Amino acid sequence: MQAKYQELKTRLIEVNDINSALGLLHWDQSTYMPPGGAAARARQSATLSRIAHEKFTDPAIGKLLDALTPYEQSLDYDSDEASLIRVTRRKYERAIKIPSEFMAEVSTHISELYQVWTEARPANDFERVRPYLEKTLEYSRKSANFFPGYDHIADPLIEPRDYGMKAADVSHVFGELRKELVPIASVITSQPPVDDSCLHKHFPEEKQLKFGMDVAKKFGYDLSRGRQDKTHHPFMTKFSLGDVRITTRSKEDSLGEALFCTMHETGHALYEQGICMGYEGTPLARGTSAGVHESQSRLWENIVGRSKGFWKCFYPQLQNIFPEQLNSVELDTFHRAINKVERSLIRTEADEVTYNLHVMLRFDFELALLEGEMEIKDLPDAWRERFQEDFGIVPPDHKDGVLQDVHWYSGLIGGSFQGYTLGNILGAQFYATALKAHPEITEEIEKGEFNTLHNWLKNNIYQHGSKFTAPEIIERATGQSLTIEPYINYLRTKYGELYSLN
Amino acid sequence: MQAKYQELKTRLIEVNDINSALGLLHWDQSTYMPPGGAAARARQSATLSRIAHEKFTDPAIGKLLDALTPYEQSLDYDSDEASLIRVTRRKYERAIKIPSEFMAEVSTHISELYQVWTEARPANDFERVRPYLEKTLEYSRKSANFFPGYDHIADPLIEPRDYGMKAADVSHVFGELRKELVPIASVITSQPPVDDSCLHKHFPEEKQLKFGMDVAKKFGYDLSRGRQDKTHHPFMTKFSLGDVRITTRSKEDSLGEALFCTMHETGHALYEQGICMGYEGTPLARGTSAGVHESQSRLWENIVGRSKGFWKCFYPQLQNIFPEQLNSVELDTFHRAINKVERSLIRTEADEVTYNLHVMLRFDFELALLEGEMEIKDLPDAWRERFQEDFGIVPPDHKDGVLQDVHWYSGLIGGSFQGYTLGNILGAQFYATALKAHPEITEEIEKGEFNTLHNWLKNNIYQHGSKFTAPEIIERATGQSLTIEPYINYLRTKYGELYSLN
Repeated sequence: MQAKYQELKTRLIEVNDINSALGLLHWDQSTYMPPGGAAARARQSATLSRIAHEKFTDPAIGKLLDALTPYEQSLDYDSDEASLIRVTRRKYERAIKIPSEFMAEVSTHISELYQVWTEARPANDFERVRPYLEKTLEYSRKSANFFPGYDHIADPLIEPRDYGMKAADVSHVFGELRKELVPIASVITSQPPVDDSCLHKHFPEEKQLKFGMDVAKKFGYDLSRGRQDKTHHPFMTKFSLGDVRITTRSKEDSLGEALFCTMHETGHALYEQGICMGYEGTPLARGTSAGVHESQSRLWENIVGRSKGFWKCFYPQLQNIFPEQLNSVELDTFHRAINKVERSLIRTEADEVTYNLHVMLRFDFELALLEGEMEIKDLPDAWRERFQEDFGIVPPDHKDGVLQDVHWYSGLIGGSFQGYTLGNILGAQFYATALKAHPEITEEIEKGEFNTLHNWLKNNIYQHGSKFTAPEIIERATGQSLTIEPYINYLRTKYGELYSLN
Repeated sequence: MQAKYQELKTRLIEVNDINSALGLLHWDQSTYMPPGGAAARARQSATLSRIAHEKFTDPAIGKLLDALTPYEQSLDYDSDEASLIRVTRRKYERAIKIPSEFMAEVSTHISELYQVWTEARPANDFERVRPYLEKTLEYSRKSANFFPGYDHIADPLIEPRDYGMKAADVSHVFGELRKELVPIASVITSQPPVDDSCLHKHFPEEKQLKFGMDVAKKFGYDLSRGRQDKTHHPFMTKFSLGDVRITTRSKEDSLGEALFCTMHETGHALYEQGICMGYEGTPLARGTSAGVHESQSRLWENIVGRSKGFWKCFYPQLQNIFPEQLNSVELDTFHRAINKVERSLIRTEADEVTYNLHVMLRFDFELALLEGEMEIKDLPDAWRERFQEDFGIVPPDHKDGVLQDVHWYSGLIGGSFQGYTLGNILGAQFYATALKAHPEITEEIEKGEFNTLHNWLKNNIYQHGSKFTAPEIIERATGQSLTIEPYINYLRTKYGELYSLN
């Protein structure tokens, strides 16, 4: 049995190695690759994807999993061995249902669409992407239909990213949250706008990036196993548990840009760096779901990084770095500026309060499109209407409306957005639990110390990688299932102090 | 037939894509990878190597090659199709003779040895690497013996790097060259040393690197298909014909370091960037041999980059960049400094005259070791004796003696050094031919124009990639086979002006 288990592991590590090389092809493409490399790079990525899929869906893996079932049953559910077999089986059974030719066809289609989108977006031209998006929607439905027996057609698309959540669960949670958020957002945005001009002076890039990395190190990001590079659309990526990288972007006239990107990606990186080293190379060695992953980026970026306590410690340091720009700016002014709530067009630039409304719009549209309740051609109008309803403003163009996010132009429609809001909810839920166990965290943050918080997250979440599903992790870490209460409390408390909420 | 040819190409491109990803794993490891990534990276590289070898030695490729023989014979030898089949067959027939398990065994051994060497070299400890090197020598002999029927045991090891040259040919050429070089070197090094202190002031790195890239662009390096990064041991690497990168290293107290590295690697990059775009992804899309490749790095670095004509144009620019350091230094003084000949310990830092003596020592030792005339344990003493004989000095330690080059500690013994000197010889031979066809090249270089030279090299060498073997390229480009005369003339003329040679 031990030999079969080892053979399974060897095969999984081979697949992992190919996927890691694939990750490096993408990282390089987004950071350093000269433009001339693009055509061959697309081909190379497709080749490696295909080989990884072929190797992972090799029937030999299915046979090993079958043979290992008695062994798995003889072990504790929590044991690493049982978990590796269980998690691999779940992923294997999903992977073999998607034919290789279908994957290749979708991948070619999406490469084309992505290329078209990069031109259509600046040209504000929705009509150019429309026929492609219609094709994508077809592929998305087809993809879901490889998994018959679903309650909602979006369920099989949500599953690989947020296992354990169905469309109905997400809709329910989002509905509850929406009831709370819309009034808060509306009360705040009817007040005079906060003055955030202190963030929009000239801040030389090099100093911004250095400060950001100093913060990342303080959070606990291990630079002997990581690094930061610049890119257009920041992301975290991992080539092994010993090599977890982040990327950021900066604007010299906007102090928040690089800094909060860095904190956000550092949250993702802390999760991956915190995974048990023994899982290296196996399917256990990655964060368990999009939602739990996002809970960490949002926790470190927002709950910690935009808190008053954090800045009590770090604002004087920031003033030292930018004395001309910030010495005359009070901590309170700065803190209000980095937490400014406003009706804005772009999801990725939205504040904590309105952010989820952007996500819900997209999630609801994904469901309606998949259900056939909405057609691709209706998207621009529907976008405008819903925006008016939720934000009280109308996007002046498609560029900053329906064309803004890369997701639909680089992947299937369905399952790609819910993780962001689940992350906001979970970040608050985890943080509240950590705080209950260690009330000293608040004071430590004011002293620029993050070990207690970081250790709690490592022990309760990070170390497990994908060993447990998101619902299992939430239950184990917080003693209950996902709940919006801590998040609502967090928003009410924080924004009640920053704005008048009555 | 067309379908079979296409199938062959598709399979070759797949292998190429895996090898390109492998190349990126190495590039990243040498430039940006955090130290924590090392262990997994070694494993990932081994995985991709193995898959590429498995895919290339798939019997299906053998069958396609067999089936395509009549097609190949119906075509011109020079046609791209016939060449692709011919070159693939040559590489395939070599590859299938080496068992995968042997390759894996050697690869594991070499990874270990490399690790040991990185510690043994600074510790000056030859004894630590000795048992590993003995094992390497065994593997090297075993590797050669997969190709029975050779004249000399080194022949099969020279073949993949310098196809068309046998140990006896190289020995003959090196013997002739040595007869000329030893007296020149000895006459020069008995003269008072040239003062090169002008190169050893403080030169800020950023300005050095910028100047180097300006020169590289002038040479014709296309930055839309390339870039330069920093590393410890500079190299050129290619991920596709649209992505050919160089690396360099700099010392702020040594102006030559980064600059001549950049010129050298640019020479390699010009070769790869100049290959016919239609060969992308196939075995034709790479330089034809180590010797011809090195001829280009040495031509651009030395024949062009260390010439008086070049600096007539570029020295005033360099003075503008470093006015404090260079305004009081005459062009002649600078030119003598960058061409200083001396008895030195390190091959990679050696001047044009003594460089080949370093190479010959290593080449002769490789033959003697493979023949069994010398044992690994004899290496340090043999090194000292030969050094005394050729250079009139004795290396004070192993670190800068037998432990200095990475080659024996990262690969087999045999075939790894001759290309450097073949490159010096060929660089001069190609240059002399280009000059005969276009005498205006000399004047153009003085004006900072390199198009005529670059185009001649592209037309006669670069575009062909691996379509022709090195002997074929030499014959086609220069009308004769390899000859040392142009190189000797070049050295006599240049160093006759810089030193007294009588």
